[in-house]
Amino acid sequence: MKRILILHGPNLNLLGRREPEVYGSITLEDLNHLIEQEANRLSLEIKIYQSNYEGELLDILHGHQNWADGMIVNPGALTHSSYALYDAIKGSGKPTVEVHLTHLFQREEFRTRSVTAPACVGLITGLGPQGYLLALRFLAGHS
Amino acid sequence: MKRILILHGPNLNLLGRREPEVYGSITLEDLNHLIEQEANRLSLEIKIYQSNYEGELLDILHGHQNWADGMIVNPGALTHSSYALYDAIKGSGKPTVEVHLTHLFQREEFRTRSVTAPACVGLITGLGPQGYLLALRFLAGHS
Amino acid sequence: MKRILILHGPNLNLLGRREPEVYGSITLEDLNHLIEQEANRLSLEIKIYQSNYEGELLDILHGHQNWADGMIVNPGALTHSSYALYDAIKGSGKPTVEVHLTHLFQREEFRTRSVTAPACVGLITGLGPQGYLLALRFLAGHS
Amino acid sequence: MKRILILHGPNLNLLGRREPEVYGSITLEDLNHLIEQEANRLSLEIKIYQSNYEGELLDILHGHQNWADGMIVNPGALTHSSYALYDAIKGSGKPTVEVHLTHLFQREEFRTRSVTAPACVGLITGLGPQGYLLALRFLAGHS
Amino acid sequence: MKRILILHGPNLNLLGRREPEVYGSITLEDLNHLIEQEANRLSLEIKIYQSNYEGELLDILHGHQNWADGMIVNPGALTHSSYALYDAIKGSGKPTVEVHLTHLFQREEFRTRSVTAPACVGLITGLGPQGYLLALRFLAGHS
Amino acid sequence: MKRILILHGPNLNLLGRREPEVYGSITLEDLNHLIEQEANRLSLEIKIYQSNYEGELLDILHGHQNWADGMIVNPGALTHSSYALYDAIKGSGKPTVEVHLTHLFQREEFRTRSVTAPACVGLITGLGPQGYLLALRFLAGHS
Amino acid sequence: MKRILILHGPNLNLLGRREPEVYGSITLEDLNHLIEQEANRLSLEIKIYQSNYEGELLDILHGHQNWADGMIVNPGALTHSSYALYDAIKGSGKPTVEVHLTHLFQREEFRTRSVTAPACVGLITGLGPQGYLLALRFLAGHS
Amino acid sequence: MKRILILHGPNLNLLGRREPEVYGSITLEDLNHLIEQEANRLSLEIKIYQSNYEGELLDILHGHQNWADGMIVNPGALTHSSYALYDAIKGSGKPTVEVHLTHLFQREEFRTRSVTAPACVGLITGLGPQGYLLALRFLAGHS
Amino acid sequence: MKRILILHGPNLNLLGRREPEVYGSITLEDLNHLIEQEANRLSLEIKIYQSNYEGELLDILHGHQNWADGMIVNPGALTHSSYALYDAIKGSGKPTVEVHLTHLFQREEFRTRSVTAPACVGLITGLGPQGYLLALRFLAGHS
Amino acid sequence: MKRILILHGPNLNLLGRREPEVYGSITLEDLNHLIEQEANRLSLEIKIYQSNYEGELLDILHGHQNWADGMIVNPGALTHSSYALYDAIKGSGKPTVEVHLTHLFQREEFRTRSVTAPACVGLITGLGPQGYLLALRFLAGHS
Amino acid sequence: MKRILILHGPNLNLLGRREPEVYGSITLEDLNHLIEQEANRLSLEIKIYQSNYEGELLDILHGHQNWADGMIVNPGALTHSSYALYDAIKGSGKPTVEVHLTHLFQREEFRTRSVTAPACVGLITGLGPQGYLLALRFLAGHS
Amino acid sequence: MKRILILHGPNLNLLGRREPEVYGSITLEDLNHLIEQEANRLSLEIKIYQSNYEGELLDILHGHQNWADGMIVNPGALTHSSYALYDAIKGSGKPTVEVHLTHLFQREEFRTRSVTAPACVGLITGLGPQGYLLALRFLAGHS
Repeated sequence: MKRILILHGPNLNLLGRREPEVYGSITLEDLNHLIEQEANRLSLEIKIYQSNYEGELLDILHGHQNWADGMIVNPGALTHSSYALYDAIKGSGKPTVEVHLTHLFQREEFRTRSVTAPACVGLITGLGPQGYLLALRFLAGHS
Repeated sequence: MKRILILHGPNLNLLGRREPEVYGSITLEDLNHLIEQEANRLSLEIKIYQSNYEGELLDILHGHQNWADGMIVNPGALTHSSYALYDAIKGSGKPTVEVHLTHLFQREEFRTRSVTAPACVGLITGLGPQGYLLALRFLAGHS
Repeated sequence: MKRILILHGPNLNLLGRREPEVYGSITLEDLNHLIEQEANRLSLEIKIYQSNYEGELLDILHGHQNWADGMIVNPGALTHSSYALYDAIKGSGKPTVEVHLTHLFQREEFRTRSVTAPACVGLITGLGPQGYLLALRFLAGHS
Repeated sequence: MKRILILHGPNLNLLGRREPEVYGSITLEDLNHLIEQEANRLSLEIKIYQSNYEGELLDILHGHQNWADGMIVNPGALTHSSYALYDAIKGSGKPTVEVHLTHLFQREEFRTRSVTAPACVGLITGLGPQGYLLALRFLAGHS
Repeated sequence: MKRILILHGPNLNLLGRREPEVYGSITLEDLNHLIEQEANRLSLEIKIYQSNYEGELLDILHGHQNWADGMIVNPGALTHSSYALYDAIKGSGKPTVEVHLTHLFQREEFRTRSVTAPACVGLITGLGPQGYLLALRFLAGHS
Repeated sequence: MKRILILHGPNLNLLGRREPEVYGSITLEDLNHLIEQEANRLSLEIKIYQSNYEGELLDILHGHQNWADGMIVNPGALTHSSYALYDAIKGSGKPTVEVHLTHLFQREEFRTRSVTAPACVGLITGLGPQGYLLALRFLAGHS
Repeated sequence: MKRILILHGPNLNLLGRREPEVYGSITLEDLNHLIEQEANRLSLEIKIYQSNYEGELLDILHGHQNWADGMIVNPGALTHSSYALYDAIKGSGKPTVEVHLTHLFQREEFRTRSVTAPACVGLITGLGPQGYLLALRFLAGHS
Repeated sequence: MKRILILHGPNLNLLGRREPEVYGSITLEDLNHLIEQEANRLSLEIKIYQSNYEGELLDILHGHQNWADGMIVNPGALTHSSYALYDAIKGSGKPTVEVHLTHLFQREEFRTRSVTAPACVGLITGLGPQGYLLALRFLAGHS
Repeated sequence: MKRILILHGPNLNLLGRREPEVYGSITLEDLNHLIEQEANRLSLEIKIYQSNYEGELLDILHGHQNWADGMIVNPGALTHSSYALYDAIKGSGKPTVEVHLTHLFQREEFRTRSVTAPACVGLITGLGPQGYLLALRFLAGHS
Repeated sequence: MKRILILHGPNLNLLGRREPEVYGSITLEDLNHLIEQEANRLSLEIKIYQSNYEGELLDILHGHQNWADGMIVNPGALTHSSYALYDAIKGSGKPTVEVHLTHLFQREEFRTRSVTAPACVGLITGLGPQGYLLALRFLAGHS
Repeated sequence: MKRILILHGPNLNLLGRREPEVYGSITLEDLNHLIEQEANRLSLEIKIYQSNYEGELLDILHGHQNWADGMIVNPGALTHSSYALYDAIKGSGKPTVEVHLTHLFQREEFRTRSVTAPACVGLITGLGPQGYLLALRFLAGHS
Repeated sequence: MKRILILHGPNLNLLGRREPEVYGSITLEDLNHLIEQEANRLSLEIKIYQSNYEGELLDILHGHQNWADGMIVNPGALTHSSYALYDAIKGSGKPTVEVHLTHLFQREEFRTRSVTAPACVGLITGLGPQGYLLALRFLAGHS
């Protein structure tokens, strides 16, 4: 049974309450529930964390990199500056899919630059909560 | 029953024969077969085209924009220069997912710039043939 | 009697149907009709072509460069990338006016860069269908 | 009867005497005469001013923005630096055509950047004195 | 007997008639004749094509990549924008020499950027029709 | 009793009438009245000028630099280009606060660059008419 | 009675001890005392926090965004890189004033770029401790 | 007897009083006196003007371009932005030397860019008042 | 007896386990042991900390800046973005050597930019664990 | 009988010994021998020099510019920085071919910039020792 | 009696023979003769050197920096790349005037960048041989 | 017994006499003496050279690359421009440490760019003469 680590970065705890016209009205709890359902359907074991601390995200990632067979990371705004997260994902050696709820290429200019993407096997952006589910599906089949 | 138009851009006809260490050994025929299977499973009606001509891609897109409920476009190398394709996707008003087999962020520098992406609802890159299937799945649920 | 070649580039075949809030509701047929009326009024002989293929635009331009005394070119999105069109206009040695229906300077950043403009005697942008008629009027008086 | 304000910017007072191989041999008086003839033909009421002072151009523009139904502005070299003119044209709310006698895209690099253009409905460049007459004709039909 | 594919890109059909002070007075027919003579002298089997369509160039290249032992490509203005041609040359796995009649480094700034060159084994620019003959000679001796 | 010079730059004479949705509906007369009231409250002697001429702003600044103990400058669009104003403020040796009614960082890209700011002790932007009053209050306490 | 949240970012705990020739000799305790006095005078309820953790600043901001009617944020060096803070301020929907003790435009080049500023209603920089007091005064009158 | 026009740009009226540690303690009157003495010595007829208005500098230059055999221009801070002055100097057809009292290459970055210099025959920078005298000497011998 | 503070930044806790072909097989414990041995040999008192939290690194640095006579900092990936660390090192007034195990100039492009370096007295990069020992030796002799 | 000067720049003396996997195993002596053979075959008189000194290359070029009818220059790493060599080639007025053994466009980014190329009639890069022989052949036929 | 060192850089030995339409027909011997005459007239002791070697220019400069009271340096093309010359001039502590015969701002783009200028007290460019004589005159009066 | 080549680049012969407030008062002779002492202590055989000629540095490096087991290079100002030195160090295949007396990151902007660093195993900058001694120590232990 494959094990997938799911990390939500800064501000994602506010999902559903922060700018719903941009991020939608679904809360983080709802989103996690959807992820868990899909994981069950795909017979995946998962762990989900959210943190507003770059350092805590690193600690969690370090602490689970032996446990995990793959990762899904939504770095939030750290996407655009966190070389530390890039280093940690790259160093883990685990297949990682970067996911964003909104489409990076349709928002502010700075969002088109992802410093974490080159450390991942792929990127899904703009497909809303589905993006997480599709990433799970991809990792389920990934060897 | 939803209708999805799938466009493969330049050089994708060589899939499986061109640099298999980069693009994988699956051929375009194999890929299209996988797409058709998934479409059946999702009860989607699909049409698939490949062309090495930007102009022909535009003609096909124009000719099907009333027919289609959504589109999946892999513009190949046109991704990095075709403002005309950007205009056509944007002008169609149909939800479009841009798909790339390989991960744009792990290859040559010029591949990190997509001029077509801002016209699409989202982007999936680096997940191989799965990328097309996940995009279908997304569009199946998209209203 | 002067002879003027008029070239419409990619996506202009969709005029009136593509994003009317941007491009207006007049169709290409309507536009061509207006151009023909004005040409009659100015006693100009004209030929009008539209193509979504850069290569076909080059072929038409090459095939008419002895015939034409002047040209009006709306390269559509090729404006921003087609050095081949630049070469062809420059190589024709015929006075050419570049025309855009919408105002390049009020839209996406990439539209402010025209690679074809330096090969033309001038540029009219933002004046809608009138832009073509004014260009005809200019070429009618150009020696 | 429509009223059109015409503004000539810095150095245009020297027209016909400054670098005639670049700007042509027609003087500002000749040009204004052509403009007046065309205005009569189109039944437009016009006022024409020239100034080498950015501040005076702003004063004139402010003083006539209630009077005018439209404007033609040739900002001369202020085209490339005057954000104040941009603000004034934008703030006037009146349809304005930017006109240049020579073709901005065939001269020094700095001339391809227009800071005033985004405040105008359109731009005519490179068509010589005709550029003003065509702009008049456009504004005559503009509602 | 080695087989060499020779591709001439957009506008090269006008050779000898387009800006002869830049490109020389030799026509494409003359040039091809010179190439054939040299090929005979070097005992090479050759095929020569010209097209104004990027897509057609790709089709020809794809269709001959098994046949050819090497290629000579003059992409014309596509040199500066065609990532698709870059992909096709790279994907062919055949030694390719990029040739330009004029010297890219002595003309407009945009000509100093070649997106196709990195896919080739080498580049000859500025040596006129000789460039093709020297490239043939190189490929004749290339193992 | 401290003396403060207040300079309003180009287009500010139109305050309240120019784009009220951007700049608010308060007129320059109203604004000056508010400034005078606050100056009275703070026991400051003030002089207020507005000009659309960069040169006149320099003349006024030069003419009052011995008189003034401090300055408040809203350079309007000159903010983004006037090195002369930068030189004059720097050369005056008097503490100067740059004030903008709207928030430079929430408008066009060019407005985020202030060439005059480095010559000032500080900057207040986006706080509307209050910005002037707060600047007065700051200068009242500045030694 | 209005409620204002005041956030001091990294290193501000060292105020008065870190480079006093740059930041002044006043300590954070002194500064907070001044802020409290002014808040009393203006009948504002305030809460003040300092943290060297970007994540903790986000948590505090999230935890008080329902409580607060407005915010004053001095992000310290996070000003130049924290898109997460930008997201959090923007997402809160509360009027926020960015304050800096020193003048960003008179120090190192990197300090002129504020990624947080576009999320705020305005910015006060260079006015020392007064900057906070003036921001309070502004928020007191803001509806 | 040769005639030389000398133009001092914005802020030079404050010479000797503005930042003497940068610009020296000599006043504009002293400088002009030195220039007149040297002109007498070289048997040159001269006229000297200073203005803080770009427009006035253009008017003076236009008004004297038939009178003058050569010009010395110190555009002050307009050096870095005035394309209008560039146009006027270029259009005059008279040999012009650009002079700066201080060394443009030893001050703020923006001062190393001169937009007026390409219109002049040469440039003297950093040699203080001597710069003007040396320019006179050069023009005296220039045919 | 001199006191030296040693700070290891994000991901360095994984030393020896993360990408050993890049970072070597020595663990952080081994490295710290080497550092302690060298400190004993040089009669230095040391304290060593590692944290994945930028904020915690700042806290440690603040808490020891009176204690320490010098510092060795390996900011890990924070090297390329942490202006806060720059501020803290600069503000401490203590001689600090920046150390990197790998050679910044032989890896990804982004690693050649160090925002923390200008706050240090020097930098040692690429010399592996030796880098720390050499830095100790330098600080031992530094007055 | 035509005379050709051949210049090898810095580090080429190490050919065959320096990074043979990049530059091949042929030594400079071998290369020169091949060049001499080809020169004999083409009835060309040649002189060959190598130097690691930019100054010496200039001296040799100056000393032979009357003697030579044409030149072949491989500037080695000076290609990317030597404006002096550019000046010398340009000043010689002799047709010069720039040759590189390896393909500049397939190596480090800095190698794609040639400052010497614009002074030459053409460039051959990536064709190994053949490049020199082809250049000889070109110059033999050049009038 | 003041002592002035005069250094001519690469290619200046060819003066009068290299591109006379650019550099004039005067030879280096003629130029040096003019310089000597002017030095006599001004009672200056001078030494003049020319070298094509950056290293030799440094050696000469080092060897005379105690001897010289001032220097005139025309670095030729080294102007645009020689940080070593910059260091040497700066390190000499002697007032140095950089002189160019032609006008750097009217030629190729790369000539507008001088890396040596910031080490000099001033710069004279475009005034031909006179430039040297004027620089002598300046140094004669410099204390 | 290991053999180390030590190269000092341009202007280092002036050490102790050139800008002592920047480079310190120690002379090159003193520095070399310190290096020799440390080499003795570490049982290393060394050779030390200084040259102001890039070409001579290349010659020395080439001549000793078989002799040397490692190198220490302080390229002086050539650091920022010498691709030839980069090529030579890279081609030598010997471990090389780049050393600078002063801290490149605390001086002029251009000093932060090292073109030679990527060819070295590491870099020590800002640690004064100690930098050389630490580099020796590193190479002594390097296998």
